Amino acid sequence: MARDQKFFQPVSSIKQPRFAGVATFMRLPILAEDDWEDVDIGLIGVPWDGGTTMRAGARHGPRQMRDMSTLMRAIHPVTRINPYRSANCADLGDTSVNPIDLHDSMSRIEEFYQRIHDNGITPLTAGGDHLITLPIMRIIAREKAIGMVHIDAHSDTNDRYFGDHTLTHGTPFRRAIEEGLLDPKRTIQIGIRGGLYTKEDNQWAIDQGIRMVTFEEYMDIGVDAVISEIPGIIGDQPTYISFDVDGLDPVYTPGTGTPEIGGLTPYDAQKILRSLRGRNLVGGDVVEVAPPFDASGMTALVGVTMMWEILCLLAEPFCRDPDQN
Amino acid sequence: MARDQKFFQPVSSIKQPRFAGVATFMRLPILAEDDWEDVDIGLIGVPWDGGTTMRAGARHGPRQMRDMSTLMRAIHPVTRINPYRSANCADLGDTSVNPIDLHDSMSRIEEFYQRIHDNGITPLTAGGDHLITLPIMRIIAREKAIGMVHIDAHSDTNDRYFGDHTLTHGTPFRRAIEEGLLDPKRTIQIGIRGGLYTKEDNQWAIDQGIRMVTFEEYMDIGVDAVISEIPGIIGDQPTYISFDVDGLDPVYTPGTGTPEIGGLTPYDAQKILRSLRGRNLVGGDVVEVAPPFDASGMTALVGVTMMWEILCLLAEPFCRDPDQN
Amino acid sequence: MARDQKFFQPVSSIKQPRFAGVATFMRLPILAEDDWEDVDIGLIGVPWDGGTTMRAGARHGPRQMRDMSTLMRAIHPVTRINPYRSANCADLGDTSVNPIDLHDSMSRIEEFYQRIHDNGITPLTAGGDHLITLPIMRIIAREKAIGMVHIDAHSDTNDRYFGDHTLTHGTPFRRAIEEGLLDPKRTIQIGIRGGLYTKEDNQWAIDQGIRMVTFEEYMDIGVDAVISEIPGIIGDQPTYISFDVDGLDPVYTPGTGTPEIGGLTPYDAQKILRSLRGRNLVGGDVVEVAPPFDASGMTALVGVTMMWEILCLLAEPFCRDPDQN
Amino acid sequence: MARDQKFFQPVSSIKQPRFAGVATFMRLPILAEDDWEDVDIGLIGVPWDGGTTMRAGARHGPRQMRDMSTLMRAIHPVTRINPYRSANCADLGDTSVNPIDLHDSMSRIEEFYQRIHDNGITPLTAGGDHLITLPIMRIIAREKAIGMVHIDAHSDTNDRYFGDHTLTHGTPFRRAIEEGLLDPKRTIQIGIRGGLYTKEDNQWAIDQGIRMVTFEEYMDIGVDAVISEIPGIIGDQPTYISFDVDGLDPVYTPGTGTPEIGGLTPYDAQKILRSLRGRNLVGGDVVEVAPPFDASGMTALVGVTMMWEILCLLAEPFCRDPDQN
Amino acid sequence: MARDQKFFQPVSSIKQPRFAGVATFMRLPILAEDDWEDVDIGLIGVPWDGGTTMRAGARHGPRQMRDMSTLMRAIHPVTRINPYRSANCADLGDTSVNPIDLHDSMSRIEEFYQRIHDNGITPLTAGGDHLITLPIMRIIAREKAIGMVHIDAHSDTNDRYFGDHTLTHGTPFRRAIEEGLLDPKRTIQIGIRGGLYTKEDNQWAIDQGIRMVTFEEYMDIGVDAVISEIPGIIGDQPTYISFDVDGLDPVYTPGTGTPEIGGLTPYDAQKILRSLRGRNLVGGDVVEVAPPFDASGMTALVGVTMMWEILCLLAEPFCRDPDQN
Amino acid sequence: MARDQKFFQPVSSIKQPRFAGVATFMRLPILAEDDWEDVDIGLIGVPWDGGTTMRAGARHGPRQMRDMSTLMRAIHPVTRINPYRSANCADLGDTSVNPIDLHDSMSRIEEFYQRIHDNGITPLTAGGDHLITLPIMRIIAREKAIGMVHIDAHSDTNDRYFGDHTLTHGTPFRRAIEEGLLDPKRTIQIGIRGGLYTKEDNQWAIDQGIRMVTFEEYMDIGVDAVISEIPGIIGDQPTYISFDVDGLDPVYTPGTGTPEIGGLTPYDAQKILRSLRGRNLVGGDVVEVAPPFDASGMTALVGVTMMWEILCLLAEPFCRDPDQN
Repeated sequence: MARDQKFFQPVSSIKQPRFAGVATFMRLPILAEDDWEDVDIGLIGVPWDGGTTMRAGARHGPRQMRDMSTLMRAIHPVTRINPYRSANCADLGDTSVNPIDLHDSMSRIEEFYQRIHDNGITPLTAGGDHLITLPIMRIIAREKAIGMVHIDAHSDTNDRYFGDHTLTHGTPFRRAIEEGLLDPKRTIQIGIRGGLYTKEDNQWAIDQGIRMVTFEEYMDIGVDAVISEIPGIIGDQPTYISFDVDGLDPVYTPGTGTPEIGGLTPYDAQKILRSLRGRNLVGGDVVEVAPPFDASGMTALVGVTMMWEILCLLAEPFCRDPDQN
Repeated sequence: MARDQKFFQPVSSIKQPRFAGVATFMRLPILAEDDWEDVDIGLIGVPWDGGTTMRAGARHGPRQMRDMSTLMRAIHPVTRINPYRSANCADLGDTSVNPIDLHDSMSRIEEFYQRIHDNGITPLTAGGDHLITLPIMRIIAREKAIGMVHIDAHSDTNDRYFGDHTLTHGTPFRRAIEEGLLDPKRTIQIGIRGGLYTKEDNQWAIDQGIRMVTFEEYMDIGVDAVISEIPGIIGDQPTYISFDVDGLDPVYTPGTGTPEIGGLTPYDAQKILRSLRGRNLVGGDVVEVAPPFDASGMTALVGVTMMWEILCLLAEPFCRDPDQN
Repeated sequence: MARDQKFFQPVSSIKQPRFAGVATFMRLPILAEDDWEDVDIGLIGVPWDGGTTMRAGARHGPRQMRDMSTLMRAIHPVTRINPYRSANCADLGDTSVNPIDLHDSMSRIEEFYQRIHDNGITPLTAGGDHLITLPIMRIIAREKAIGMVHIDAHSDTNDRYFGDHTLTHGTPFRRAIEEGLLDPKRTIQIGIRGGLYTKEDNQWAIDQGIRMVTFEEYMDIGVDAVISEIPGIIGDQPTYISFDVDGLDPVYTPGTGTPEIGGLTPYDAQKILRSLRGRNLVGGDVVEVAPPFDASGMTALVGVTMMWEILCLLAEPFCRDPDQN
Repeated sequence: MARDQKFFQPVSSIKQPRFAGVATFMRLPILAEDDWEDVDIGLIGVPWDGGTTMRAGARHGPRQMRDMSTLMRAIHPVTRINPYRSANCADLGDTSVNPIDLHDSMSRIEEFYQRIHDNGITPLTAGGDHLITLPIMRIIAREKAIGMVHIDAHSDTNDRYFGDHTLTHGTPFRRAIEEGLLDPKRTIQIGIRGGLYTKEDNQWAIDQGIRMVTFEEYMDIGVDAVISEIPGIIGDQPTYISFDVDGLDPVYTPGTGTPEIGGLTPYDAQKILRSLRGRNLVGGDVVEVAPPFDASGMTALVGVTMMWEILCLLAEPFCRDPDQN
Repeated sequence: MARDQKFFQPVSSIKQPRFAGVATFMRLPILAEDDWEDVDIGLIGVPWDGGTTMRAGARHGPRQMRDMSTLMRAIHPVTRINPYRSANCADLGDTSVNPIDLHDSMSRIEEFYQRIHDNGITPLTAGGDHLITLPIMRIIAREKAIGMVHIDAHSDTNDRYFGDHTLTHGTPFRRAIEEGLLDPKRTIQIGIRGGLYTKEDNQWAIDQGIRMVTFEEYMDIGVDAVISEIPGIIGDQPTYISFDVDGLDPVYTPGTGTPEIGGLTPYDAQKILRSLRGRNLVGGDVVEVAPPFDASGMTALVGVTMMWEILCLLAEPFCRDPDQN
Repeated sequence: MARDQKFFQPVSSIKQPRFAGVATFMRLPILAEDDWEDVDIGLIGVPWDGGTTMRAGARHGPRQMRDMSTLMRAIHPVTRINPYRSANCADLGDTSVNPIDLHDSMSRIEEFYQRIHDNGITPLTAGGDHLITLPIMRIIAREKAIGMVHIDAHSDTNDRYFGDHTLTHGTPFRRAIEEGLLDPKRTIQIGIRGGLYTKEDNQWAIDQGIRMVTFEEYMDIGVDAVISEIPGIIGDQPTYISFDVDGLDPVYTPGTGTPEIGGLTPYDAQKILRSLRGRNLVGGDVVEVAPPFDASGMTALVGVTMMWEILCLLAEPFCRDPDQN
């Protein structure tokens, strides 16, 4: 009881307008590493897009998502969860990155998440391009492969680019499977679409056992059918949520590097996320928000609302006293 | 007969291109107060956003909506109503406003609508933020509380902001109910969504008897089910239409102050409006178009198309000779 | 066999990033007229908007569509067609145009398509405003009227504008029918909506036998019902595809001259196009992309993806060896 | 005396905020032709860009210039002229135009200016592309060739485009000289710059006697030296001011069709205009504001401020009682 | 010595890229009020635009200025001052504000600055509209009227707006003089320009003894002559710097509420500020950055660079050991 | 004589409008490597920004510069040089690049320029970030160090970033000097400005003998004085021109990665370039055009006009028959 009395609380926009104040995730305090001890869920930015093969810009994602996050309120309209009463949540700042060196950046990101992991904090990340999920998984899935609910236009299981290069934002999950971090049989990818480089594209992923729901199948069977499959795939073992904003129709998220027409609506994505309530979730990310391609911030608003939906999911299990929530 | 011979007519874009000419609502003449005598339906701007708690800009709404209104044509594609043959319609200009004084603005708006009311004109308004509906109701609902069909992301029935302030664009309908202007039992709100400040949010409105259709319920039951409820709620008594463009998904209306992801499509909104044909309608408004956040004018185009749909509804009962229409 | 060994191939973005290189349609080679001999399908730009009655800008469409076309990949995700292995495809450049003279431009466009026709090339065109379809039809339908699958917000069968002017982007199909180029009984128009100038609008088209699916009917019966009608209308005779991007909801294609709210989604449009597989298709166009009204290029991305869908349709019949494809 | 008591006055922004009200030039009343009788100076829009060879969009210039004109105030900061106390000024609306027919548009514009001329009104015009100055001159210079102070990046004295076409926005002054409307020896062109099509470009104009101040010479001798030359060139005979916003550096006026880097600053242009006080001025125009290329409206703000400077020049001679002014 | 060892230091962009991390002013730490004790210079945001008569938006100024401030580096290129080695600088966050109540906001701002004043901190403020300077002066000039170097397009010494309203962003310095906070004889205003409401505008200010340098005079005499006047005006008594970004040509600062063409260049403004080295400066502000009118952030970059120039001025006198600097 | 008869010529915009056709540099033909034999001057794109430490986007520079280059005409307005009659000029396309690997990209760029060098072609390059100048110099200065006229806000002679990383867009000229490619004593840097990381910044460059003209000095002595120094610095030995668009005030070139307020005007830059006529020039580049930060293309227009100025300089010495020119 005493503990959640002192949970960090966002500034309420009914007291101070939302455009006021330094922009942190969800208007939560920003904590230096010394103060991480009591944090349950850490909101983290990874401002890096060095794995991007088309339009860069996701390096600016965390800052714009923090800005738009001040539009978020406290209580979930459907589940009535108040994440800030359920768990101690804080903005842990951005990882160190190196915009000119991919491998150095991978190391810096891993080191940051190692310290988060050592503090027992559940990470919720704003990217950055999709390659950043790999170093995160290298920390949180080191002991045991995790499952994944993955919303995206692309499977991100390609093998090589530009000759023999194995690390781009098109390859993280091939590497994660190869490294034993991601269990393909406990992975579902939703929204995959667009032309292919070769007829073999995506086949490797399917052969590993990933359940790949193309956008065409998605439209044929409907979101409810997809949702009903998820529990059977991820089970009750640790599972990660990875949300690439290009999984949505680019009309909702034009500020991204590799838009593909078609795609989910934000509401369908919310339905999928909300269906994960009660699952064994060990973290999540929202990636590929590239502000230079959407100065309006609307892409970031969509992205950070998804982040908030995931936050509600991650926070609920921490709650010991439902009435407190 | 003689009377509608001389109804004001918009300039036809098949005669003069739409980009030509001073921008008035629907390319109708702009009338000074001395010429209001024969007007049936007045199109009015309230360029004011002093009740806005997040992003201001709706003060510029009427001007941009006038600009985009030149894309409207004469005849409704479904009902075949020609509003300009059914009723005498005119642009009555903007109300006086005071951007630095909320209370003075409320008075100025009330005075303007009193004069419109005194001329027996049905008002159709382009906002401005949503607080402007309160002074309008203070005039047109003075004698008797009216019902309302309300499309919005927010219930706008909060009580106080920033301490003890009772008038913001988040509170007009609480005040209207308290003042006996709005009959909550004859009110339906459609599209309500987004996080809540407290677990009590929206409860007051529901307790008063408002039928609140959250976006989640809306998606579950479908637009046709919602439409079928409306007649039973509003009945045949005087009813107002209030259309906040943030009721739509912000992808359609990014130029607004408090966007919430999710929301109606423009076509669903058109269906709802079209279903109101034959109802006892006493006025309407389209509010919260904030051009600085959508320089393209597309938000204003959506808004003014809704205004035109409402115009067709308001005009039809004036028609005495259907063949003339 | 030897022939398709040397089909032109786009640069693969897995080898060279997509932002690199001169922007040609689909990253195909750009061919001068001397090299057209072996081309099966020609991608052509008609950078002209002199028939536009509202917002000009479609003159810049081909260039921005070429730019965004570098996001296209080789293989269709559903049909598995690789158009570049099925047929010899090339960028044939832009027609000559005259931005200050409508009639001179019509002649220049006709001359260009005559040379394409003389080379036995199937044309796939990026407009330009919709009037450009008329000179194209004057060449490819000279001998025999063709059918048409037409996606658009407007029927484009008006008669006159600005007095007695017969050629605008609102009149091409009235002229094409009058000239015997277009068979109205083998024509379907999908997505028609918006206010009317007069109660007689669209009636002429319907009287000629065009199957006009208004957006309202479209929403009532659904895309699958519309698709099921098409074969009975167009039959197995030569048919053209004309895709005006304003057929889609303007949220997807704001960069266009005469936006109308409502409209198809890109995915529904893709479904319609994909349903035309195996039909007797003699060409197609995507028109009314006006970059000045959408600097982001997203309208062009939608447009060029539709162009690529049509390319896959046009290419498949050329394929002699399915395994080669 | 009685007459100027009733001069039209703009709405003061110290009484009603500038964003309020229908946008007319300078917040003056918009007058139908029946009410032109007492007008001294007419502000007119010519929403037409059919003579444009590169980027169209100036058709939207008058409307955006009206919008930004509400930022203008009453009294000139240097000359202390109040144009609205000196002369009776009004917004006369837009001329009729035909966006798809150059020659028809020329006729419509001429007819409109003939009626203005017949009412004895001095015209001050917002374009439209630069070809519109030709039909204006055909009316106001019919009896006698006029002089011109011309600010522009281009001489606009080319002969033919796209083959043998003689009327584009690059040719009006060649035609005006040939038709005896413009006296080249009483013409000064300021700010001419940019690459040439041929080595003969501009030579024809110089050979006719035009004083052409290239931007290079302008920078070498300075604005004051240029100003000192003007009286000797234009003398005291009737003179017109034609201001193409591309005469300024495109950083100030990006919303234009044919930008050339370099160019005047707005302040230098104001100095040149202010130097014309007391000259025999018979009209003026500001052309080539193309809003689609500068949605911010800043180009229009620059353009309309120049229009206001010219208005002050045109109004002063009408003033009979300097104390009234 | 020990003290400045522990001065707060910005994150160096040569160590961590500038796009990384929560955006605070100059990448300095953000301090809660409990930690203000050792601060010498406080950087503060006042996110409020309730005094704005034209285009609102300056409420968003502090956040965007914080974002762009991460482009600032440590050492002044001319004076070689390192402000962070000279004085202890920190981001103190934003004041409380109330966007719907002008008078309540004035009180909240005053209370915040009172606490800053009580801590002996020199304030450097990012607005907000220009009315915010009044409550700041009410605190820092309570005991004794201060002088002012004021860069602006407008004198901001008007008396009333919209009837009898005395507090807007056009009146702060009239009120400050009336309240004895600002010494007009020790005040210089630079860059004043644009049309006037009445012939009496600005005269009151001049009559009080303000040295008003209109932009016209500024261009005539040159920046160096203006600079040479300043010491004689402000003397060695306490002086404030108030920098309205509309003092610059709007091409540099389009993101502002009331742009006037003409105006200073950023470099001239820097020269003026740099000339104030060694003066008795007691605070400063940069106001009227309105991000909705310049999503690019360039206006904010100009604004925050001026803020950094002022910071260097304010910091230097704190330095006890020049070698440490 | 026969040779220059067949020089490649741009399409004239007086024949075909400039918005028509595939966008190549200056509307010249795009040549595959097999056709390079007779080329004198090659226009090349290096679409790469992997050395960027702040805002990426210069990878898109070459494509947008090609687009805007179609505004260029044939003949220089001052020197009367027609570069296309003086030398055989062609667009050689883009180098191969690898957006995720800095070192691989350096190799690919070097290989491309080696082939250009082997063909005896003078390279004129559109970047890309400034690091690309290093691999170019590694080819063209391999035998002997070259001089440089360098316009930039930054000296780009820093040593390390993000720890011990030696290759970024802030270090190329330190590396070039260390590698013996660039002769610092024959190098002038113009426009250097902005805050410093440390008091030692820029000192290394000065110590090597570079003539560094800070923007402050530039404004003090004037552009003519700077121009007069150049011949004495570069002499008659081989010299390269490197033009970073951030050398200009960011108001002209907002689309760049690291803007610094202040800076040259485009006209001053043109004057500097024009002063280099007759010098021994061996190549040039225009770098750091980042389209995502200026969708308008105006930054690219400025950049490509500078490229055209350099082209005229490079072409003139090839001319054997001045009358032909």
